[in-house]
Amino acid sequence: MKNYLSINDLGNLQEAVKEALDLKRHPYHFKTLGNQKTICLLFFNNSLRTRLSTQKAAMNLGMDVMVMNFGSEGWQLEFEDGTIMDQGKSEHIKEAAQVVSQFCDIVAIRAFASLIDKERDEAEVVLNGFVKYANIPIVNMESSVAHPLQALADAITLEENSVNDNPKVVLSWAPHPKALPHAVANSFVEMMKLQDVEFVITHPKGYDLDPEITKGCKIVHNQEMALENANFVYVKNWSSYVDYGNVSTQGTNWMMTKEKLGDAKFMHCLPVRRNVVVEDAVLDGKQSLVIEQANNRIFAAQLVLKRILEHL
Amino acid sequence: MKNYLSINDLGNLQEAVKEALDLKRHPYHFKTLGNQKTICLLFFNNSLRTRLSTQKAAMNLGMDVMVMNFGSEGWQLEFEDGTIMDQGKSEHIKEAAQVVSQFCDIVAIRAFASLIDKERDEAEVVLNGFVKYANIPIVNMESSVAHPLQALADAITLEENSVNDNPKVVLSWAPHPKALPHAVANSFVEMMKLQDVEFVITHPKGYDLDPEITKGCKIVHNQEMALENANFVYVKNWSSYVDYGNVSTQGTNWMMTKEKLGDAKFMHCLPVRRNVVVEDAVLDGKQSLVIEQANNRIFAAQLVLKRILEHL
Amino acid sequence: MKNYLSINDLGNLQEAVKEALDLKRHPYHFKTLGNQKTICLLFFNNSLRTRLSTQKAAMNLGMDVMVMNFGSEGWQLEFEDGTIMDQGKSEHIKEAAQVVSQFCDIVAIRAFASLIDKERDEAEVVLNGFVKYANIPIVNMESSVAHPLQALADAITLEENSVNDNPKVVLSWAPHPKALPHAVANSFVEMMKLQDVEFVITHPKGYDLDPEITKGCKIVHNQEMALENANFVYVKNWSSYVDYGNVSTQGTNWMMTKEKLGDAKFMHCLPVRRNVVVEDAVLDGKQSLVIEQANNRIFAAQLVLKRILEHL
Repeated sequence: MKNYLSINDLGNLQEAVKEALDLKRHPYHFKTLGNQKTICLLFFNNSLRTRLSTQKAAMNLGMDVMVMNFGSEGWQLEFEDGTIMDQGKSEHIKEAAQVVSQFCDIVAIRAFASLIDKERDEAEVVLNGFVKYANIPIVNMESSVAHPLQALADAITLEENSVNDNPKVVLSWAPHPKALPHAVANSFVEMMKLQDVEFVITHPKGYDLDPEITKGCKIVHNQEMALENANFVYVKNWSSYVDYGNVSTQGTNWMMTKEKLGDAKFMHCLPVRRNVVVEDAVLDGKQSLVIEQANNRIFAAQLVLKRILEHL
Repeated sequence: MKNYLSINDLGNLQEAVKEALDLKRHPYHFKTLGNQKTICLLFFNNSLRTRLSTQKAAMNLGMDVMVMNFGSEGWQLEFEDGTIMDQGKSEHIKEAAQVVSQFCDIVAIRAFASLIDKERDEAEVVLNGFVKYANIPIVNMESSVAHPLQALADAITLEENSVNDNPKVVLSWAPHPKALPHAVANSFVEMMKLQDVEFVITHPKGYDLDPEITKGCKIVHNQEMALENANFVYVKNWSSYVDYGNVSTQGTNWMMTKEKLGDAKFMHCLPVRRNVVVEDAVLDGKQSLVIEQANNRIFAAQLVLKRILEHL
Repeated sequence: MKNYLSINDLGNLQEAVKEALDLKRHPYHFKTLGNQKTICLLFFNNSLRTRLSTQKAAMNLGMDVMVMNFGSEGWQLEFEDGTIMDQGKSEHIKEAAQVVSQFCDIVAIRAFASLIDKERDEAEVVLNGFVKYANIPIVNMESSVAHPLQALADAITLEENSVNDNPKVVLSWAPHPKALPHAVANSFVEMMKLQDVEFVITHPKGYDLDPEITKGCKIVHNQEMALENANFVYVKNWSSYVDYGNVSTQGTNWMMTKEKLGDAKFMHCLPVRRNVVVEDAVLDGKQSLVIEQANNRIFAAQLVLKRILEHL
């Protein structure tokens, strides 16, 4: 594997999940693979799980880790070509990416969607800037439109908790006080399309995800019907895609409850707002998988780094 | 040892000091004890000594270290149960603590008192949130009401510098332009109660510490009398406990001077405001132990981490 | 070598460059030299290249690294002697430097010029505060008046790219929207004075550097004449030294272009503002050495750390 930008970069997902579960059983089995290899984690946005789990994964493989908050510790970057850089931005992505790639062996990047300019968000200027100008593998730690480390961790969690073949998995939109990106939902949908599952997306009208991504997926606007006989319910808020980045008054009663959940397992990528996205009774109950999902972030990252290291 | 929340978690203090002094002589003697163990240092407040000394201590034991400024790099945390999280806070301590505890083997936390809400400060919501929800050992890097790593470093420094049995130790309040927490003073008092010393607390009226903590201690409001024949003078400002978090006009002449100090050794946890808390002549003189106290922060932390690692 | 504060601390520059090039060929040749040695990188200002390259250099030598943003993560420092510290500053450099030097074996410091108070900038209060009060080697990661790690990287790059003896090297001022320090230019000039080259400085009137530093150097105010037959053109903006820290309306047409550059190699320390300091065609062309200069920052730092470690 060269870069890990999308869940589709993994090739056979089932094999990747199996390999990640091997790493979970033997986290230090490849502890010399990363010797004299350095990963640089560059954050353009805040992070808790991604920061610590990716760092842990790299250390499990014997790598050196450099962590940097690019925004506050480095320089403001320019991404456009041909600009006269006489305003606030001190450095062009062309230089920054080439330079950083000389100081390490892998670069991992977090750069969220602005939710202001759809075209620019979809161009993934930060992530793709590094892909274009850096000469080393790039790992996506959540970009404008994708969060493939989360999706792989979710696939691992589903594999660990599936008791029947062809389970029913529902992605259910939830309310949220702030406008949130589509990255987690997008990558979850893409991961679902690689799985042998009955997959249903449910959300209020106006909250359709990018139709390119959900193409071929069953979409139901009646949450109750969608949830019927579900084995796993993945809950996540996202802002409008059509009315880009906006939050409508729709869906105030879409919070996930114990009653709605029935016998299904509950999943969420975290952080989660209690009693807005999901009620306490779900998170504090035995059907919640959120803590294990977070744990699996280590092994998702470790699988990705292992595969990249093996091809360096 | 499971957690290190208070100086009382050490058991026999004299043995702990002895063990720390052994580590000071042979800092790399246990350099494989922490192999494949990771400590996560979480800062909710600024730090210089604690950050660097704890990191150094962990590295001396061969541990991997992850450092994170929780406030600025992570998410705002909610600590109350049952809240509808539709305001500024993105994540509940329940999830955050469980999640972080999966990414490492020990969590160390710094979370200062607000000095606004006494009850909430005494509930130690951050530290106790991690104790309650994390499944791994917790180390207190200064909480609302305690700074036990400092107190252990102070005990080490006292042991190294005591020339007579049963020395007289005075904790002397000092003026300060800002309202400061009681944590350092509290832990020093608790440490004193475990020692074979003549201990006196002196402060202006209105600056009594928590009576639960100072119970049984000699308290004198006349600084001059208190300092008489002292062997060690530990100087520290704190804001009012009764009139919680406030600073009165009392005590403007309580700055420690060379004259007041006499032949005693001078101690302070640092950072210290020169010529406000203590005059230059004291800090620049031979009776000051403040640099050695800071040095001993390494071995205090190393003793604590060693004991925790031995019981993992 | 004790401290690395100036390019002159290296002794014979040609030997240092040769040793650095050996390290570039065999970066892990001394990977046990730094065992059980710790470097602390203290940033009072932002950094990208310096932060990552110095960290990488230290790791290549097997050192442990602690990185700290002193301003935002630590305490505000007081540098004056005898001050009554009752304002915003919590800690004196005397304590901070002594304390930090106990937690590591080498301290590296970045502290830019204020460009407000020339005398204070030239006194190098931060860097010299650490030199004075710390008891361990200090490395300059760009101070008010010098950036010797950059100058050494530049010397390495010149050595690698020189095809003829006694090349002509031109330091050419460039326009910039913000007032910038003189550190890079100063250290480049000092490095040039140690080389067997034909060296010319060119800048608009009013932009003379510190005459103490440029003493003996050829200075030409006609950029075109200065650039004639140049082999290397080092471009850099700096604010006025005489009219300290100010930016005049002079020199708007001093941007480096492909046409002006001719057949010369282009150098810049980065970050660089495209189409203000230099046009795209230069940076994107084959004559640009800026990426290699940045790469050589690793080996400049590694040479410096290696020499310090060898004398610890």
